[in-house]
Amino acid sequence: MTILAVDCMGGDHGPGVTLPACKAFLEQHPQAQLLLVGQPEALNAFSHERARVVAATEVVEMHDAVEVALRKKKDSSMRVAIQQVKDGAAQAAVSAGNTGALMALARYLLKTVEGIDRPAIAYPLPNAKGGATTVLDLGANVDCTEQHLLQFAVLGSALVAALRNDDADPSVGLLNIGEEVIKGSEVIKRAGELLRSAAASGDLNFYGNVEGNDIFKGTTDIVVCDGFVGNVALKTSEGLASMIGGFLKEEFSRTPLTKLAALVAYPILSAFKNRVDYRRYNGAALLGLRGLVFKSHGSADAFAFGQALNRAYDAAHNNLQGRVQARIAHARPLLAAADASAGEAVTP
Amino acid sequence: MTILAVDCMGGDHGPGVTLPACKAFLEQHPQAQLLLVGQPEALNAFSHERARVVAATEVVEMHDAVEVALRKKKDSSMRVAIQQVKDGAAQAAVSAGNTGALMALARYLLKTVEGIDRPAIAYPLPNAKGGATTVLDLGANVDCTEQHLLQFAVLGSALVAALRNDDADPSVGLLNIGEEVIKGSEVIKRAGELLRSAAASGDLNFYGNVEGNDIFKGTTDIVVCDGFVGNVALKTSEGLASMIGGFLKEEFSRTPLTKLAALVAYPILSAFKNRVDYRRYNGAALLGLRGLVFKSHGSADAFAFGQALNRAYDAAHNNLQGRVQARIAHARPLLAAADASAGEAVTP
Repeated sequence: MTILAVDCMGGDHGPGVTLPACKAFLEQHPQAQLLLVGQPEALNAFSHERARVVAATEVVEMHDAVEVALRKKKDSSMRVAIQQVKDGAAQAAVSAGNTGALMALARYLLKTVEGIDRPAIAYPLPNAKGGATTVLDLGANVDCTEQHLLQFAVLGSALVAALRNDDADPSVGLLNIGEEVIKGSEVIKRAGELLRSAAASGDLNFYGNVEGNDIFKGTTDIVVCDGFVGNVALKTSEGLASMIGGFLKEEFSRTPLTKLAALVAYPILSAFKNRVDYRRYNGAALLGLRGLVFKSHGSADAFAFGQALNRAYDAAHNNLQGRVQARIAHARPLLAAADASAGEAVTP
Repeated sequence: MTILAVDCMGGDHGPGVTLPACKAFLEQHPQAQLLLVGQPEALNAFSHERARVVAATEVVEMHDAVEVALRKKKDSSMRVAIQQVKDGAAQAAVSAGNTGALMALARYLLKTVEGIDRPAIAYPLPNAKGGATTVLDLGANVDCTEQHLLQFAVLGSALVAALRNDDADPSVGLLNIGEEVIKGSEVIKRAGELLRSAAASGDLNFYGNVEGNDIFKGTTDIVVCDGFVGNVALKTSEGLASMIGGFLKEEFSRTPLTKLAALVAYPILSAFKNRVDYRRYNGAALLGLRGLVFKSHGSADAFAFGQALNRAYDAAHNNLQGRVQARIAHARPLLAAADASAGEAVTP
């Protein structure tokens, strides 16, 4: 039995979206149980034998500062959902609330795994091979060191292996501005060296440097970068996809004749739309914590929120937490050596 | 009369692409003259009263290292084309050759303008408003300081004003991971402060922080970032556009019925394709040098190479070089103050 704690109040829409998604999820997963966290008056109408309400009186709003979530709203649905994971009542928490608050609360309540300095957020992006490329970090860890990038690679590998539930070691690319080893900033060059050592010692399946276009080509299963670069890549992609979608719509609705053509082309356009539908890839993992937390887009609809639930379920069911910890334990000598050499580098 | 020096041998295709583009360009611009730089046997067949061949015996190949272009091939078409600008025989040089070599040669031969530490490459990307957003740097200036970002903002403003040839001061956004002033790395926060001072003293029309999606939204005329982030944003966009194009093509060619629908939708699809055609935006400016150099995509066809010629012509015709120098002269107290405060910051 896999139990998820769901922050039912989070996101732009709250229970109006989370409850229908929970209902569909329970129907699809006979082995799953849900803890519906939130204000009982908003949730009590929901009834299912494998779900029960866990009361939380407060709600972290989308615009709340991190400090408010951490210090003021101590009985928020977001916090109580994470607490369920900490207490062992659930294997993963899912929230569509404010990313900064979720990250801060998760880090405060669950703490990072030994060997990991900073948790990372891993996003799956669709690729031309029909699968997804997992990009991390997107958690706004700016100014990362090479050790952080190595940690992200280890975390991402554990995530992808768990979601696939197979033994093949997923491939990792280091996001850079050229394939050659000599390219990039000093941090990136040193990260490349660490990742090559990790590959040599069998801790990682490191492919080498990749460039921005490799994310959508699907050259590697995982692309590692700092949170600044990752955020720019993600947001730029969203902007471009939205512009292209807008242009396509405009062209097909220009005249009565083009509207007629749109009718003829409708099944094709909707198959196309389905393939580029970002909702299918909703559900980012907060990695490196002593418990599983998944983040849905704030604006998710019930379908998209359901995808985040599915992802959390697969991760929990396939023991992502155990895999992360085993991988990190295995890579510990490497991570420790990387930290030690960083220490040396700053000591004259 | 505006004179351009064209590296006719550069790029993936050489004279097979550059000469037809030159021919069309001369027909469209009765005020233009061209210096066709390259191996005379490859160019002598071209005849036009406003074009003449300038001989250069060597060619910088796409895979040549920067050192080869700088130290070995001293009579390359790329180098001789830039030399024409240095000698005052042409107002701008255009090449589709190897970017690293072009940047190195341009910097070596022309030198940077006083007040500018590093030249930058500015790329126009199409935006949802139907115009283009100019993004810089894409010239692989990794590890930029806040002073460099300020310089890029000044250079980009001069470029956009010259290409538009109007007096409205183009707006500048600082690429960041959130709109709030407190977001981003330390360099980005300090760059924000410098840009706000520049706006306060009337040197720049600074909008504030922008995010990746604002590039394609067209929120500002110019987006400033370091070369690493810019390169990732550009390549990621290329990867996504190519994936989306591939999906659309696949869906329309899936069955005889969808192929029929593609025929019906053909005029719409081709209008759409035209709107997202990156070839229309070909022609990046190398900025901050004591002379104008434009870079075409290496894989450009004659239409795309012609766009790079058009852009170089507009820039030269509208006195981009004078505008850059005037803007920098005007901003000199600001640039100097920024450098001085950087000096203070590193002095204990």
